[in-house]
Amino acid sequence: MSIVASADIAAAAARLAGRVVRTPVLSSDRLSEDLGFVVLLKAENLQHTGSFKARGAQNALLARAERGELPSGVATFSAGNHAAAAAFAGRALGLPVVVCMPPGAVEVKVAAVRRYGGEVVVTEDLVGTCQALAADRGYTLLHPFDDLDVIAGAGTVGAELVADTGPVDLVLVPVGGGGLISGVAAAVKQASPATRVVGIEPATANAVTHGRRHGALVPLPTRPRSIADGLTAPYAGRHNLAHIDEYVDAVIEVPEDAIERAWWELLDTSKLLVEPSAAVGLAALRLHAFEADPGARVALILSGGNVAPTTLARLGTGI
Amino acid sequence: MSIVASADIAAAAARLAGRVVRTPVLSSDRLSEDLGFVVLLKAENLQHTGSFKARGAQNALLARAERGELPSGVATFSAGNHAAAAAFAGRALGLPVVVCMPPGAVEVKVAAVRRYGGEVVVTEDLVGTCQALAADRGYTLLHPFDDLDVIAGAGTVGAELVADTGPVDLVLVPVGGGGLISGVAAAVKQASPATRVVGIEPATANAVTHGRRHGALVPLPTRPRSIADGLTAPYAGRHNLAHIDEYVDAVIEVPEDAIERAWWELLDTSKLLVEPSAAVGLAALRLHAFEADPGARVALILSGGNVAPTTLARLGTGI
Repeated sequence: MSIVASADIAAAAARLAGRVVRTPVLSSDRLSEDLGFVVLLKAENLQHTGSFKARGAQNALLARAERGELPSGVATFSAGNHAAAAAFAGRALGLPVVVCMPPGAVEVKVAAVRRYGGEVVVTEDLVGTCQALAADRGYTLLHPFDDLDVIAGAGTVGAELVADTGPVDLVLVPVGGGGLISGVAAAVKQASPATRVVGIEPATANAVTHGRRHGALVPLPTRPRSIADGLTAPYAGRHNLAHIDEYVDAVIEVPEDAIERAWWELLDTSKLLVEPSAAVGLAALRLHAFEADPGARVALILSGGNVAPTTLARLGTGI
Repeated sequence: MSIVASADIAAAAARLAGRVVRTPVLSSDRLSEDLGFVVLLKAENLQHTGSFKARGAQNALLARAERGELPSGVATFSAGNHAAAAAFAGRALGLPVVVCMPPGAVEVKVAAVRRYGGEVVVTEDLVGTCQALAADRGYTLLHPFDDLDVIAGAGTVGAELVADTGPVDLVLVPVGGGGLISGVAAAVKQASPATRVVGIEPATANAVTHGRRHGALVPLPTRPRSIADGLTAPYAGRHNLAHIDEYVDAVIEVPEDAIERAWWELLDTSKLLVEPSAAVGLAALRLHAFEADPGARVALILSGGNVAPTTLARLGTGI
């Protein structure tokens, strides 16, 4: 199994220059004072399309073009942020994109795909339909996370973090199918081996923990559900588990109520609207005794900001 | 009446280095595509204490110290963001700060003053009580906006904007008593005379428009109220009107419902939690036909992010 090297991530960064937002690393006085760490926030909620996925999707298409594998179109599948990112990437390159989405997909996420000019096909059988569409049309099938170019694109989040802050003590990364943490861990560990990289997944959507026990691509026994809807991948990818085995110090789980509280706390203290998926790192900081000295520098990857309206409405209930 | 020069603002920037966040200038694809302008967002909601006020308060104390006028303590008055900023500035310099606040002040704003070590005195007569406290204790009386050092500090917002983006076509600035726009307009116009600077105030809290008709320090006939609670100054300052007369192209008013809609739209599209006061610029963009070419670059000063819980609860009602 291949592992992306820092050279791959540097190449991705060069391809993405001008095509992604170099998102700021922000801090929160209140969080830092309260937690006793220097808390750094990599604000990918401010990224194009509202999540880090804009990096991997664009890098995947650009890298394929460089290798002479420029597709005539792209077929992909996602219920969430990758869907909009793939449509955005296709529009940027002038390629048609068809996205298979499940019947229950949130309406604003469907609308985002269409806003960027993507075609939506609603189907229960995401992968099967997507494969058939790719074969029929001669399109490339793009996996939303189990893809080395997608991983290298996600790695630019980690590379920017290290470049902007220098080595930090601990990086906490939201985990769904494993795309983001694969790239971030490769970038951070290759630049700073002493930095600990820890993945956080919802206890009710723990595909990576499940995959480490039962194997890559083995789906969870029941359909995962979480307020962190961006992390409800049904399985962990092969490339993703390889990167996690190589570079990630631990993957830990957090319960739903802690995610909700952390999401609210981030909004209140950092003034950033993130999606609940992006709050799992703070939830873990609140629940777990990380062995870090007072004053240690802890980076949270705020993976996205696309909040479902039904979730946003809960803000008013004063969680 | 004195006007702050770009040298004063540069001196303020030097004093504030390391003491304020150099807030990012962000953009929103969705806002820009929808409005037909390149919309730039100067995110002072990410500033220490949650608003631009941290700049003026600190510059005022540091500048007085440089001039050999270092006070033994500071007495000031505010119902809002200046209160926390003054306490923050005092803590940074090791000076005691007493803040006079009205009986109706929002609890989180009172708590913010105390969090930074400030003393709160609740009083109906803000100015009178503050003057008496200053006299009794030998403290300096710091005006929240009608002060040249405060204005120069606020001017660093404009100086950073120009430095980070180059000249823009239009800058929209929230207006309460006139502190922010005095500094921003001086910085922007001295660097880029062709840039239009327009102030926006709530129609129900139009102290500057009132002051231009009736004179500085002349209070509004009734106590101003607005969802943009940070802009409810009862009068415009003398220094502020002088700067506005010199540098501001227009001051326009926006109604409450437009402010609410703009505030929600900013949260949804930019992923930034701002206070309603910070949304008046977008409200104006939505309501007024600014004579700007398609593709013009329009900067909105997002002045702060301290949202009262009662206001935040309205999010859930799906404005």
